[in-house]
Amino acid sequence: MTLIDGRAIAAAITAEVTETAAKLRESGTAPTLAVLVPTDDDATAWYVRSIERAAKKVGVDCRVVQLEKPTGADVTRELDKLSADPSVHGIICQTPLPEGVTLDDVGAHIDPRKDVDGANPVSLGRLTAGLPTYAPATAAAVLEILKREQVALSGAQVAVVGRSTIVGKPAALLLLGEHATVTVCHSRTKDLAAVTKAADVLVVAVGRAHFIGADHVKPGAVVIDVGTNPTPEGGLVGDVDQAAVEEIAGSITPVPGGVGPVTTSLLLRHTVTAAQS
Amino acid sequence: MTLIDGRAIAAAITAEVTETAAKLRESGTAPTLAVLVPTDDDATAWYVRSIERAAKKVGVDCRVVQLEKPTGADVTRELDKLSADPSVHGIICQTPLPEGVTLDDVGAHIDPRKDVDGANPVSLGRLTAGLPTYAPATAAAVLEILKREQVALSGAQVAVVGRSTIVGKPAALLLLGEHATVTVCHSRTKDLAAVTKAADVLVVAVGRAHFIGADHVKPGAVVIDVGTNPTPEGGLVGDVDQAAVEEIAGSITPVPGGVGPVTTSLLLRHTVTAAQS
Repeated sequence: MTLIDGRAIAAAITAEVTETAAKLRESGTAPTLAVLVPTDDDATAWYVRSIERAAKKVGVDCRVVQLEKPTGADVTRELDKLSADPSVHGIICQTPLPEGVTLDDVGAHIDPRKDVDGANPVSLGRLTAGLPTYAPATAAAVLEILKREQVALSGAQVAVVGRSTIVGKPAALLLLGEHATVTVCHSRTKDLAAVTKAADVLVVAVGRAHFIGADHVKPGAVVIDVGTNPTPEGGLVGDVDQAAVEEIAGSITPVPGGVGPVTTSLLLRHTVTAAQS
Repeated sequence: MTLIDGRAIAAAITAEVTETAAKLRESGTAPTLAVLVPTDDDATAWYVRSIERAAKKVGVDCRVVQLEKPTGADVTRELDKLSADPSVHGIICQTPLPEGVTLDDVGAHIDPRKDVDGANPVSLGRLTAGLPTYAPATAAAVLEILKREQVALSGAQVAVVGRSTIVGKPAALLLLGEHATVTVCHSRTKDLAAVTKAADVLVVAVGRAHFIGADHVKPGAVVIDVGTNPTPEGGLVGDVDQAAVEEIAGSITPVPGGVGPVTTSLLLRHTVTAAQS
């Protein structure tokens, strides 16, 4: 079995982004990603710092806007401000959100031209219609990995386990756009293993540690593990029991070091693309 | 095999719509559907007349706006006007469109609150996100028929053949929202019959007469035939070879008299809903 090197893929994307960012700076534009942080949650702070570091490396300015005990209205007002600010090219908003504002509200207050994590319903609708748009970065990472690994998608049988708006559904739509035959599975799916075992490509995004085992995987299948589940020891494990499937799968993304770094690199790629247009 | 009576389902919906429309009129609002017709195509004119008749029956005013040799800009300008007109509650735009304007442009110029056929990317994005919205009426008709026929959808294996933005994809998303396990198939699907034959519910929207035959259907399956293909004799046939599958399927929607009338009744239901809000 091949372990897919997400960090190497991220590095390749990062190199491209660095080049584009440098050209933008030469022409007088400093590509800028605004990160709205409406929480003092520790895990969020850790993730925001990792985005800051990654942005710095590629020459993207990261403007972290930390809100102290905000109301829902504070969050949407700040998003409106960032949407209207010509020096900001990309906008993402971290969770958890305060009471009085939903993820849907957040999306609706991010200008689609700056919506680098595909949170606005307009972005999602354009994705569904197959129009150019920013897909949610995690879903985009799934497709990017498969393309960089040169996995044949046209006509391939793909199973996506999980139907969230930020990963499962957009990943399924992106893969459908690549002419795969896509089945979306979830908690109500009967005989999940029968469905996943028929898949040439298996994408798992359920948020349950080691949910997918040996019985779920077709021999030789490409497995993309989107899960990042914290362990009691302070580590991370995926939704796939990697030890169990390593003799069966053809290739698999590890956790950590798989989808995660690619996702961050795509957020930055989306930001420089937004700065170019 | 049961033949699903689309006209009876449409009549039941129509009865509900008639009641709501009457209440709206009592309170001083005449629910109004604007139909923009940017073509002198005969088939379109025929369809528009059928909408007018159906609207009249339920007490919805149908305002047909016929444009003579319009430019693309004429079409979007008229949609903007209708979007801004407080006496209009629902807006649909017929095809074929003149040069210089695309279906996507049309959607973007229909106010989402009046977008009774789900043409705006915002509507499609909200549908994808599982938020309240107007789904494209044909896709909504597929779900409405299955619900009125009390077909168990949670955990059911569903195959949708066809991945258009107006039927296949939104129907798949609606069915996913009902907790079905949904596979979307299309022209690049390998061994289509193997996929469709595993489906408890088979939805076909490919636009090819008699594309689905006996080999494609699981015994007892519910088959929803969205196709309306004109015959040389001036009639209509579906995408499913009904004669071939009638000994196998559990139930099927006929063409004509299946999905079509339900679609029209839902356009009108969406319009009175829009007039209520």
